[in-house]
Amino acid sequence: MQQYPQPIANLIDSYKKLPGIGDKTATRLAFYTIDMDEDDVTKFAQNLIAAKRDLHYCSICGNITEQDPCEICTDKTRDQSTILVVEQPKDVMSMERMNDYHGLYHVLHGVLSPIEGLGPEDINITSLIKRLQKDTVKEVIVATNATPEGEATARYIAQLIKPAGIKVTRLAHGLSVGSDIEYADEMTLIKAVEGRQEM
Amino acid sequence: MQQYPQPIANLIDSYKKLPGIGDKTATRLAFYTIDMDEDDVTKFAQNLIAAKRDLHYCSICGNITEQDPCEICTDKTRDQSTILVVEQPKDVMSMERMNDYHGLYHVLHGVLSPIEGLGPEDINITSLIKRLQKDTVKEVIVATNATPEGEATARYIAQLIKPAGIKVTRLAHGLSVGSDIEYADEMTLIKAVEGRQEM
Repeated sequence: MQQYPQPIANLIDSYKKLPGIGDKTATRLAFYTIDMDEDDVTKFAQNLIAAKRDLHYCSICGNITEQDPCEICTDKTRDQSTILVVEQPKDVMSMERMNDYHGLYHVLHGVLSPIEGLGPEDINITSLIKRLQKDTVKEVIVATNATPEGEATARYIAQLIKPAGIKVTRLAHGLSVGSDIEYADEMTLIKAVEGRQEM
Repeated sequence: MQQYPQPIANLIDSYKKLPGIGDKTATRLAFYTIDMDEDDVTKFAQNLIAAKRDLHYCSICGNITEQDPCEICTDKTRDQSTILVVEQPKDVMSMERMNDYHGLYHVLHGVLSPIEGLGPEDINITSLIKRLQKDTVKEVIVATNATPEGEATARYIAQLIKPAGIKVTRLAHGLSVGSDIEYADEMTLIKAVEGRQEM
């Protein structure tokens, strides 16, 4: 009785560690890999190693970066009085593509989710509070997703920050309810920033 | 305006080369990779390289193998008078798992498909004919998938081989029409081999 040759069994195991990829898909991808151009496979392997080795989270804002602190945190031409809070590094990219916001960012790396057992200590909230103690920040824009968890997280942050006299705003409902920031078009994002309201 | 850092942009490009993976999924996989265990990422990269480097197609039967000729072609205890023809290396694994067939294999690496412009010269048919000239083969079992292309390929092979006086059989309709061999359960495969009929 023949099993898959070891090299392909190993590759299937690796593909299966990726999210949303089960047995069948992993097998299909592994066999496809063997037929790929050798250069492409080598590059794929190098890119995996490089991404893991060269990318870090900024120790100030939590965004993904090659240098620490990141380019945005070290850019003194940016408005130091505003911090826009997002769930994921991808959301920073979406905001930057809009090319209309010039303040700083803070990446939570998640949202509060009682169902998944994620509390305030599981996301980057402590580091946000710490940044606010410097007194340069006048406004925090909470740009978590328009999902129930995103809204709850926004309310939690607002309650935490407002007593310190810092203005807390939330993106306007330019975002359609239930959608992710990542998929919003640029005009929707611009409207959402313009119409932000105090919490 | 900030773009994705180069290492993650490169990794997204590599993921996008895989079949069925578009922009959004590639981005999600790339960000996921950065959060993965470093050992897992290193192993993933090594497995990619090893699979591409150590696996080859058997020069006799076209099956995937670490050694050439493959273990099945060099196993003299196997029935040398029967060749079972399949579309893909995965199908050999499916047949071997059934543990009921002890002859040889031939992997076509595809099927005839006028729509995709695949003719007889694009799949391993010439090498099959060459193997039959040795006169040791008494029967060819055509185990292409029960799809229109698989059936057409089976008929083409039968027409080519029968004049040489070799028995050509096709798997019985234990296989449900329109399905792939890869997904069949072992009993269905056993029934299909038992009920094979001359073409």
